[in-house]
Amino acid sequence: RRGSGYATMAKSKFEYVRDFEVQDTCLKNCWVVVRVDGRNFHRFAEQHKFIKPNDDRALQLMNRCAQNVMEELDTICMSYGQSDEYSFVFHKNSNWYKRRASKFMTHVVSQFASSYVFYWKEFFPTQPILYPPGFDGRVVLYPSDQNLKDYLSWRQTDCHINNLYNTVFWTLVQKGELTPAKAEERLRGTVSAEKNEILFSEFSINYNNEPELYRKGSVLIWVKVIRPHRSGKRTQVRQERNTASAECATSTTSA
Amino acid sequence: RRGSGYATMAKSKFEYVRDFEVQDTCLKNCWVVVRVDGRNFHRFAEQHKFIKPNDDRALQLMNRCAQNVMEELDTICMSYGQSDEYSFVFHKNSNWYKRRASKFMTHVVSQFASSYVFYWKEFFPTQPILYPPGFDGRVVLYPSDQNLKDYLSWRQTDCHINNLYNTVFWTLVQKGELTPAKAEERLRGTVSAEKNEILFSEFSINYNNEPELYRKGSVLIWVKVIRPHRSGKRTQVRQERNTASAECATSTTSA
Amino acid sequence: RRGSGYATMAKSKFEYVRDFEVQDTCLKNCWVVVRVDGRNFHRFAEQHKFIKPNDDRALQLMNRCAQNVMEELDTICMSYGQSDEYSFVFHKNSNWYKRRASKFMTHVVSQFASSYVFYWKEFFPTQPILYPPGFDGRVVLYPSDQNLKDYLSWRQTDCHINNLYNTVFWTLVQKGELTPAKAEERLRGTVSAEKNEILFSEFSINYNNEPELYRKGSVLIWVKVIRPHRSGKRTQVRQERNTASAECATSTTSA
Amino acid sequence: RRGSGYATMAKSKFEYVRDFEVQDTCLKNCWVVVRVDGRNFHRFAEQHKFIKPNDDRALQLMNRCAQNVMEELDTICMSYGQSDEYSFVFHKNSNWYKRRASKFMTHVVSQFASSYVFYWKEFFPTQPILYPPGFDGRVVLYPSDQNLKDYLSWRQTDCHINNLYNTVFWTLVQKGELTPAKAEERLRGTVSAEKNEILFSEFSINYNNEPELYRKGSVLIWVKVIRPHRSGKRTQVRQERNTASAECATSTTSA
Repeated sequence: RRGSGYATMAKSKFEYVRDFEVQDTCLKNCWVVVRVDGRNFHRFAEQHKFIKPNDDRALQLMNRCAQNVMEELDTICMSYGQSDEYSFVFHKNSNWYKRRASKFMTHVVSQFASSYVFYWKEFFPTQPILYPPGFDGRVVLYPSDQNLKDYLSWRQTDCHINNLYNTVFWTLVQKGELTPAKAEERLRGTVSAEKNEILFSEFSINYNNEPELYRKGSVLIWVKVIRPHRSGKRTQVRQERNTASAECATSTTSA
Repeated sequence: RRGSGYATMAKSKFEYVRDFEVQDTCLKNCWVVVRVDGRNFHRFAEQHKFIKPNDDRALQLMNRCAQNVMEELDTICMSYGQSDEYSFVFHKNSNWYKRRASKFMTHVVSQFASSYVFYWKEFFPTQPILYPPGFDGRVVLYPSDQNLKDYLSWRQTDCHINNLYNTVFWTLVQKGELTPAKAEERLRGTVSAEKNEILFSEFSINYNNEPELYRKGSVLIWVKVIRPHRSGKRTQVRQERNTASAECATSTTSA
Repeated sequence: RRGSGYATMAKSKFEYVRDFEVQDTCLKNCWVVVRVDGRNFHRFAEQHKFIKPNDDRALQLMNRCAQNVMEELDTICMSYGQSDEYSFVFHKNSNWYKRRASKFMTHVVSQFASSYVFYWKEFFPTQPILYPPGFDGRVVLYPSDQNLKDYLSWRQTDCHINNLYNTVFWTLVQKGELTPAKAEERLRGTVSAEKNEILFSEFSINYNNEPELYRKGSVLIWVKVIRPHRSGKRTQVRQERNTASAECATSTTSA
Repeated sequence: RRGSGYATMAKSKFEYVRDFEVQDTCLKNCWVVVRVDGRNFHRFAEQHKFIKPNDDRALQLMNRCAQNVMEELDTICMSYGQSDEYSFVFHKNSNWYKRRASKFMTHVVSQFASSYVFYWKEFFPTQPILYPPGFDGRVVLYPSDQNLKDYLSWRQTDCHINNLYNTVFWTLVQKGELTPAKAEERLRGTVSAEKNEILFSEFSINYNNEPELYRKGSVLIWVKVIRPHRSGKRTQVRQERNTASAECATSTTSA
């Protein structure tokens, strides 16, 4: 429409290259999960002096980014985050961008990444961000509700296993004054009961009293907000008190 | 390895969900192009008061982001940008992340997005960024060198067509004091010679003297840098004077 | 392992070409349907003098081929056929050939095609087969049981619509002595009640008394066979009296 | 269009299931190779008493089937066969069925399979075919001409390696009166020079005088046929004297 003679002709001559795009439609009637992971966040955490084993600021920043993703992209049912990863669940009936996997992935991951830098200073007011972080993303499809529940359970169990390990490890290093190598050796092969026992008997820490934010991760869901003097109902992203049991998580997805 | 008894058993019970990931390996021996596009950048440009038709700050910020992408991800041969889009070319022999399309896309687009916020204030020192912008990304495969050249020619011709139109449109509005609607009407159906003529005869503007940055877009390539007193050669991203003719662009890709 | 010096070296030099195979794993936990369709069967039917509108021999041959497919490939739950098409349902938990779509498709379609020629003379003892027929095949995935039921209902409704039309059309031609063009014109725009009425009032044919084989298509399921004096139970393909209501069809798939 | 009221409504209600078909378009500007392999042909060969190590009848039957595939499907440049496999090359510019992989695969493999039974008695006049054989098929894409040449070289080298082994093995068994186990033991670890030497010094067989059909496989190409008194030129499938050197093979593909 904005034709300009020769250039337009040239453009249409080259336009055949459009037909080389990869087709990547997600199968219908499947839950679409996009998981975002920090790239080299071990290094990033060190360089930005994240507190070990859990840095509240970093976790709340992740939650803030996820909230922005849900508000900007608006067809996401719920999301679940822990450590440097976040999973976003699109409804199985979503027809957003004709269900193209590349659209799901890149919109989520770019919004998450730009939010991370944008909101950084709200959570790290005294620690400047040193360089722009990277993330990777992937799409996974789940045909049944049970598959989706199991996915969320998988991520939450991963959270639990890693957090219990990290909690004991860093307690041994920070309070027990072991070297990291000694702490690792001490923990090798221990099961969870033994780890709980180390925390309790040697450091008087009851692991179950640790914050749910650390032990269970975070769930973001939509809640209806009633504003009596305004224009009625609207929905808002709310963080679900970090009680991200899979049950709770998926009961919200069915809504 | 960080097993903790019951939790580990639970985790392995749920781990079957990993097998649902979409396979998306890019065909070997094809050039892999990732194109990043701003999401709703029309609105973003308005809210951040971008100068029309071209805002040097915004274009240079795009170039800065692309440079960061190339430096962080390091297997990209070259990149080409114009307006709010940027294309990154991975070598056809690249085996980065086993050529998974999702890895190519999400690493590029997230690095680009976080860079955009990170470098914003270098280019817009007096205009704060109001919200985190989004981008979308896609992967396109080109089997032959000619296909790749034609892709770059397609994007550059697109740059030319849009820029010529926008230049005349905004000149009519800003200097000719036409309303946008009148300017659009004036330009409807005109070919490029007529647009050039309007600029020249009515506003004494020779379109060919407009900056190459606007007319042709930007190319980033790798150049060898020789440092006599240091540790010898190394490579560095350089912006190729905006002479992004497709010839030049693809001669660099063969390097 | 059967190395022979130079040739082996040459072979391994060329073997890189294996990595170009298309990945086509079917998403887990989805029903896999392979549908086979005759290629140019309109022409094939004419040249082999199939009786219009339904040729029992041709339909029974299709059923015989489907039975062979089920017996040879053995992970197929059930199959449904009508006219020159047949659909085969693999269980959603099937892991046959790691769920590669190309394996599902090509094994089914080649077995069907070779069976068609092999069993031809059993059904057409006096009419030789003139040339080898072709078929095409496709894979469709269904995440939920309801989707699968709807697929089977779709194919069966297609059978009904086409068979009612064809029955009236050929009755008008064969008994009503209309030309095909006149018969087509007569039927244009008629709904099913009107077609039933033509059959009944003009030709004393009650459509509901037409054979179920024609009106509903065929379902093949597995049945357990008990052989008292032999080695106990075994399963056998059985044709389900052509009462291929979707209900019946899918109740068998859940087994 | 052949609507019949309620049934039509039902059909359109179920028709949504069409949207679940797998997308499988082959990347443009790539050679498309479909390879067909016999399923369980070891068993099939035994039960049909194929002569070892090469049965001329079986090889010529394979060639006849490939010829039928090329004549029926008509956009195939060339094909190459050896043992119980055959590869069909579609031109990189082919747009047959919009380049859907499933169409390429299933049309080729079903035509091949039905031809195998159809032409069987021409090549095995005294040995009836006992059951319908199965084949599998796959699609492989090659972006460059060199990749395609290497593919053909790979298959031909495979032919050479297997045929040399089989020739010596069966000579040891048939003329040398070794048991199969002894023959296998004798050949373990031998390189090609040693195999040639066994044939020559112990059995006076010069391997290079073995038929090219066995040593090199078969190539089918299109040739122009000039018929002076008829309607001019037409093309015909011709078997290329089994000199399927990759050079020759791919020079024909460029035609």
